[in-house]
Amino acid sequence: MNIDFKKLADKYQTPYYVYDFDYISNQYNELKTAFKARKSLIAYAVKANSNLSVIKHLANLGAGADCVSIGEVKRALKVGIPSYKIIFSGVGKIDDEIRTALELDILMINVESAAELDRVELIAKELGKVARISIRVNPNIDPQTHPYISTGLHENKFGVDIDTAKRMYIQCNNSENLEPVGIHCHIGSQLTQLEPIKESVKIVADLVKNLKAIKIELSFMDVGGGLGIIYNEEKLIDTNEYAQAILETMFGLDITVVCEPGRFIVGNAGTFITKVLYEKINGEKRFVIVDGAMNDLIRPSLYNAYHKIEVLNDNKELSLCNLVGPVCESGDFFAKDVELPKTKHNDLVAIYSAGAYCFTMASNYNTRGRVAEIAVQNGVDKLIRKRETFEDIIALEEEFIN
Amino acid sequence: MNIDFKKLADKYQTPYYVYDFDYISNQYNELKTAFKARKSLIAYAVKANSNLSVIKHLANLGAGADCVSIGEVKRALKVGIPSYKIIFSGVGKIDDEIRTALELDILMINVESAAELDRVELIAKELGKVARISIRVNPNIDPQTHPYISTGLHENKFGVDIDTAKRMYIQCNNSENLEPVGIHCHIGSQLTQLEPIKESVKIVADLVKNLKAIKIELSFMDVGGGLGIIYNEEKLIDTNEYAQAILETMFGLDITVVCEPGRFIVGNAGTFITKVLYEKINGEKRFVIVDGAMNDLIRPSLYNAYHKIEVLNDNKELSLCNLVGPVCESGDFFAKDVELPKTKHNDLVAIYSAGAYCFTMASNYNTRGRVAEIAVQNGVDKLIRKRETFEDIIALEEEFIN
Ligand SMILES: Cc1ncc(COP(=O)(O)O)c(C=O)c1O
Ligand SMILES: Cc1ncc(COP(=O)(O)O)c(C=O)c1O
Repeated sequence: MNIDFKKLADKYQTPYYVYDFDYISNQYNELKTAFKARKSLIAYAVKANSNLSVIKHLANLGAGADCVSIGEVKRALKVGIPSYKIIFSGVGKIDDEIRTALELDILMINVESAAELDRVELIAKELGKVARISIRVNPNIDPQTHPYISTGLHENKFGVDIDTAKRMYIQCNNSENLEPVGIHCHIGSQLTQLEPIKESVKIVADLVKNLKAIKIELSFMDVGGGLGIIYNEEKLIDTNEYAQAILETMFGLDITVVCEPGRFIVGNAGTFITKVLYEKINGEKRFVIVDGAMNDLIRPSLYNAYHKIEVLNDNKELSLCNLVGPVCESGDFFAKDVELPKTKHNDLVAIYSAGAYCFTMASNYNTRGRVAEIAVQNGVDKLIRKRETFEDIIALEEEFIN
Repeated sequence: MNIDFKKLADKYQTPYYVYDFDYISNQYNELKTAFKARKSLIAYAVKANSNLSVIKHLANLGAGADCVSIGEVKRALKVGIPSYKIIFSGVGKIDDEIRTALELDILMINVESAAELDRVELIAKELGKVARISIRVNPNIDPQTHPYISTGLHENKFGVDIDTAKRMYIQCNNSENLEPVGIHCHIGSQLTQLEPIKESVKIVADLVKNLKAIKIELSFMDVGGGLGIIYNEEKLIDTNEYAQAILETMFGLDITVVCEPGRFIVGNAGTFITKVLYEKINGEKRFVIVDGAMNDLIRPSLYNAYHKIEVLNDNKELSLCNLVGPVCESGDFFAKDVELPKTKHNDLVAIYSAGAYCFTMASNYNTRGRVAEIAVQNGVDKLIRKRETFEDIIALEEEFIN
């Protein structure tokens, strides 16, 4: 990554997010290549970074889309991802969403409960359609990650157990409005251990084989997303070993492998750039206050997540401080007790690894407009989302005060 | 509160927030009355619930506004709060915000650091204006609340210590562009103990007296917000005792008392209504999945906050469950291990005490549109913010994909 943050700050003001589209291409291609021994679909997990230009860039590379709301499905279609590469997952699909997904004829609906399967069947019947179904299996495996992003244990809300899945496949097979086409599992995010993935994929592959034995033949085996990235000093899963481990379980099966990476593709493509407003000392404590805040990037507050931080000045005089934003909560911080150089007004601060689950979770808390998003590709920068104005923020409520 | 949630769900769909404006009036009047022995200004903390109609309702009752961004100042002005009732607080004011606040001639800028005072002085000078200044004192007192909403300790980023404050007042007094008019402290939110408030207000009042001795006479003593509300079974601070404790410290001072309640005014005026989509059992665990999610109301995820929950059906068959939303994170929950009746598709669920710090923190995570907000006053309901559509969500990025 070689982005002139200062130039972008002058051009677009701060705070802003900037994404390196070349890095995104590299990540996508690395994973796609790792699976080259098979038919594969890399369905980008739109939730990680939903900016239309980001998705469009991935669409151009050939990616599909893993979506968790009909809004995400519409984003994918809008930028040209063909419907046959779109998957709709999620534990809480609303009737209207199911209806629209069927009408849009996407690749498959990834069903997460027996009750949901009944709803999908009902709605497909009403529409006179056949719903292509994938079932999300919860393999009850501990992915060894943060509890908020661990999803593959029975104590989590996701998926169904193997026996329930089997019954649901049989229901599909017996229904005129359901067609079993896929199987799915996703055990968590920011995974750095291959072993839990291997175990869960093996459970899924065994189920595929058992289903085959009773003449239910699936076409897609979706191994989820979850590949971790380096925020700090994580040791990563090697993508080739990852692909190899998955492909091995599929030996003898004529099935397309699907994976749904989000963070892996965009996480380290993004940087959040913010500007120093003030320094202050309270008691013994040093605070560096910047113009970005928890409403822009909530991961430190929400997950106590670590992001590497760099002050973009030449000062070598380091000391401990908290890096905080203007929002009126003590929870509004980017880092606590971090060593940073002495700063002055308008120095820039880079918060790295901010491409995934950052802008997507931004809010207007404290009536702060969401920041600008910028793409850089081949050394050329381009605005991909305008900074939100006061007028934008009040647009949906203004008419009601008169 | 006597609101027909079902009727509103039929009329406006789910999920939605509804606010009882009569309750808001009562809360405002209770506090205003408690301070009747003095000149007082109840400056509503806009951050708690920034809907324009909510602020307008409070404006009509005579409230001022405590704002923490220029966006909040603009909201207050937009609904008719006069500039002389508007305070601008916050640790991270941007130059542009300071400039606009001075141009709009609001009551006072509540300054939170020595560095900020220098910026305000500089900008006031550039504009040829005199900035009315209040200084936020950090009394270093433990408010005994959640660490994220505790703000009155030196380890927090807020305010300045007494000695620094004194120096800053002297700087104001010596400057042609600064006028010291107020003093401020706010030690935290959801306070249920009077003692820490008493202690900190006493520290502030002592400073006011010391300043008077050196001929710096302040006109406003702002005791902050923070009055707690009942989420569960909290024992509250009595508002009369609260006012009494504050007024006692002001004996002999000719000063207007300001307070900045947010949660107290709107917290229990609001209810979040969501609809059951599915029930499921994973392993031993029961999940009730509703159409609302953490992007709509993040307090349980972010603070592990308790909200009282009620399923609006007649079923008496109770069992433990997790109440969760459709967002693809295990952190997406409203309650864990809560006893709720068996539900069916489309049953409504009320999540109470959702008037403060709920909608304001809503995001578009998972490309979910923010929900509708409704006011009820005198038995009459009225939309006060439209449900966000897919087109609204992509409005600021759409043009860049072509
Ligand atoms: C079903 C599903 N697939 C894919 C992902 C993407 O995960 P990651 O960004 O870790 O690759 C998630 C993340 O929550 C998910 O829930
Ligand atoms: C300076 C200031 N005033 C007032 C408030 C409002 O607090 P509450 O909603 O608890 O009354 C806050 C809350 O964060 C605050 O920071």
